Amino acid sequence: MSDTQAFIEEAVSLLGSRGFTTDPELVTPWLTDWRGRYTGKAIGLASPSSTEETAAFVRLCARHGVPIVPQGGNSGMSGGATPDESGAQVLLSLRRMDAIRELDTRARQVTCDAGVILQTLHEAAAAERMRFPLTLGGKGSATIGGLISTNAGGTQVLRHGTMRAQVLGIEAVLADGSVFDALTPLKKDNRGFDLKQMLIGSEGTLGIVTSATLRLLPEIGERMVAWVGLPTIGAARELLLHCGDVAGDMLEGFEVLPAHCLEAVIAHLPDARAPLAGNHAWHALIELVGTADAEDAVRAAAEKMLAEAFEKDLLEDAVLAANEAQADAFWLLRDSIAPAERAIGPAMQHDISVPVAAMAKFVEEASPQVEAKFPGTRAVGFGHLGDGNIHFHVLAPAGASRGEWEADEGKRVSAFVHDLVDDFGGSISAEHGIGQVKRDELGRLGDPVALAMMRSVKQALDPDGLLNPGKLVPLAKDHATA
Amino acid sequence: MSDTQAFIEEAVSLLGSRGFTTDPELVTPWLTDWRGRYTGKAIGLASPSSTEETAAFVRLCARHGVPIVPQGGNSGMSGGATPDESGAQVLLSLRRMDAIRELDTRARQVTCDAGVILQTLHEAAAAERMRFPLTLGGKGSATIGGLISTNAGGTQVLRHGTMRAQVLGIEAVLADGSVFDALTPLKKDNRGFDLKQMLIGSEGTLGIVTSATLRLLPEIGERMVAWVGLPTIGAARELLLHCGDVAGDMLEGFEVLPAHCLEAVIAHLPDARAPLAGNHAWHALIELVGTADAEDAVRAAAEKMLAEAFEKDLLEDAVLAANEAQADAFWLLRDSIAPAERAIGPAMQHDISVPVAAMAKFVEEASPQVEAKFPGTRAVGFGHLGDGNIHFHVLAPAGASRGEWEADEGKRVSAFVHDLVDDFGGSISAEHGIGQVKRDELGRLGDPVALAMMRSVKQALDPDGLLNPGKLVPLAKDHATA
Repeated sequence: MSDTQAFIEEAVSLLGSRGFTTDPELVTPWLTDWRGRYTGKAIGLASPSSTEETAAFVRLCARHGVPIVPQGGNSGMSGGATPDESGAQVLLSLRRMDAIRELDTRARQVTCDAGVILQTLHEAAAAERMRFPLTLGGKGSATIGGLISTNAGGTQVLRHGTMRAQVLGIEAVLADGSVFDALTPLKKDNRGFDLKQMLIGSEGTLGIVTSATLRLLPEIGERMVAWVGLPTIGAARELLLHCGDVAGDMLEGFEVLPAHCLEAVIAHLPDARAPLAGNHAWHALIELVGTADAEDAVRAAAEKMLAEAFEKDLLEDAVLAANEAQADAFWLLRDSIAPAERAIGPAMQHDISVPVAAMAKFVEEASPQVEAKFPGTRAVGFGHLGDGNIHFHVLAPAGASRGEWEADEGKRVSAFVHDLVDDFGGSISAEHGIGQVKRDELGRLGDPVALAMMRSVKQALDPDGLLNPGKLVPLAKDHATA
Repeated sequence: MSDTQAFIEEAVSLLGSRGFTTDPELVTPWLTDWRGRYTGKAIGLASPSSTEETAAFVRLCARHGVPIVPQGGNSGMSGGATPDESGAQVLLSLRRMDAIRELDTRARQVTCDAGVILQTLHEAAAAERMRFPLTLGGKGSATIGGLISTNAGGTQVLRHGTMRAQVLGIEAVLADGSVFDALTPLKKDNRGFDLKQMLIGSEGTLGIVTSATLRLLPEIGERMVAWVGLPTIGAARELLLHCGDVAGDMLEGFEVLPAHCLEAVIAHLPDARAPLAGNHAWHALIELVGTADAEDAVRAAAEKMLAEAFEKDLLEDAVLAANEAQADAFWLLRDSIAPAERAIGPAMQHDISVPVAAMAKFVEEASPQVEAKFPGTRAVGFGHLGDGNIHFHVLAPAGASRGEWEADEGKRVSAFVHDLVDDFGGSISAEHGIGQVKRDELGRLGDPVALAMMRSVKQALDPDGLLNPGKLVPLAKDHATA
């Protein structure tokens, strides 16, 4: 019996047939990343049902030297949850661990397992008149474990911060199969290094998140959603400052998109229509929210904000959603950009950030530079202006073939874009993480001191390289491959 | 020439006579911690004037194998900045690095060097109509570097979080003298492990913070400060929930103190008087704030909050500060508890947290238990109820001699208190850190998995143990001393 066969038999014996399978029909769907850029192989798919099972499985893997690729909803953007092509790795899905352990409205906290889907958490909070203040397009598939492992962002970071800001406590299985239990409901705790922070955003390379305590907020009583037409992205920046001044803490979201993105979404979504009648080079989606007793204040602030913006010539046109259905429709346009872009054809997506003040300049300068250097491409930026975070996509020339273009010209496009980002003092990954798609670029452009620290920490906590190898942590220069 | 002499000569040559001294008159004041519990020895006092000088000095220390004790304002509560008694360590003061490099009101960020004193930062922000939302009693001496290294808390954590929540970017010198430069103004950055989080709260054991980018908020337009008399700490918890419901985001501070603390402060502070006429077993200090355009809302919320609390019998008596001077006077009472207690006599201070909901129960149960087990002692709790963080002080029996009592009965008192905290699922260090005062207790009560992770990370980033040895990181069990 081969080592692999022995491993499989032990895994089935440990997790049961529901907990471990090698059936291609069950495994294959999880071997390709959401964007369809990576397809790997795996010994099998483990789906433990508890932290204890997860820990026991990790110990089994450690004993057999089988590298583990943890996976949540498999809707990540960076190939971080896709195994390599060796067939020597095992997929570890956390999706069966989907219990909401405890929701405490007084303490405004919820403890839930890694496999809970974001939308499920939203609904559970809403049922208690609370809300979980992080959302994103993939909320129907993204899991809490995946969101923590990638320090996910989304459309409410402007006011509430990234996933890191929502995590009060964490439970994770480490490389040796021990369980790091910091599911504390403590608001203040200075007992040494904040180890949970190290796990948040480590993409499964330092530990496997199995559960977390998250903060909740009181439900929203009122929200006002505006759609605004703008001549330039620079105008959007001025408008954002104005909105912040007028609406203060009520300003919950400020998303921008160019005309091209809106057109792509409208072509892609059945029954979708543009919120404004005229043509505008740029659009902004603005959301103001308040608690139940602030309904009038939110409405008044939204109306004042837009009226003054008109007066000051900060926008070309604007409309306030008349009701919740229309507000949802506005947001659906925004949340559909990624699938709409994907349907058009090959593209290189760059999830970048630069200092907020420099964002307009970056988009204005980078787009024509990219399009000039790579004829036939089209560069578009959209996303979270208030966070200095733009998704800068470069669409392939018409007729480019999917798969080939990305691997060839697309790679050169990305290197060019990343160099520009670096010149602006920005980040080549604002919120999507590094995964495998950006690992080499991080190695090329990252601060050598930071890279050395990362390698030291990885080596210290996972000396045998069992946890999500090949992801996130760039190899040392002398080991790097092109 | 001895090795030490050679080190000193190289240090003077590197930093100049202002930057390195062995003069006892200049060194001695920094060899004892603020509470007077530890006094150490040092080869000398280094005071570099720049990050580059700091890095060069660390490299010099590494070459000579001289352990470094970094120090900010020397107002820490845990002996974390005091060298040991060997005389083999060197003090590294960051106080000369006191430049505010850049204050950007549009981006709401400030970049300042480690030696900037908190109060200086408050004043610099106020001059630009901004504020830095963290404050504490020691603001006149505490430095930004020290506040970051200890992840300081204070009286505004309820709304704004600890120091960790204020830090956007960091610059630090590592054990090998390399400079980790993450002074980024980026709001979102997912390029690998969040290494700055590892440095925040690491008490100088992983790196020496030399500069930081911090977030700023718009200045406060209006604040309302109330002083409230209460029958029990349980009543304070109910009042806190009520205040949160009524005031929402305006609720900035909620501090509690027992009658004993107020009496001690009034005896200690010249001209101080009690805010309320009657006697109350417990007192609460409540602060509501709002921006300039929310003045009326803040006042209305404060009045409604207190009126309804009276109606619901949630308090015995209350007074709103009539003006800023009176508000300051209320806060001065609160901020003077630590020095007032210190003046009374020996005491063991426990900076503990338990789940917020369990805090009242803890104080009510722990105080009589401690006083029964250690006759003559008096146990008092005060502090940040909203954070589940109480400073639980046990005063020595009358006539106990300072120094001796702490080392003998005091140690047993602390172990007893920490065991109680552990039973409540709490933390033996909520905000003051571990330093040397709690290192062995952390080793005794800490989660073995967390302790093993801490040791691994420390070993990885400071393999020769040069950075603040003996602090924070408990020794492995087989090396532990009693």
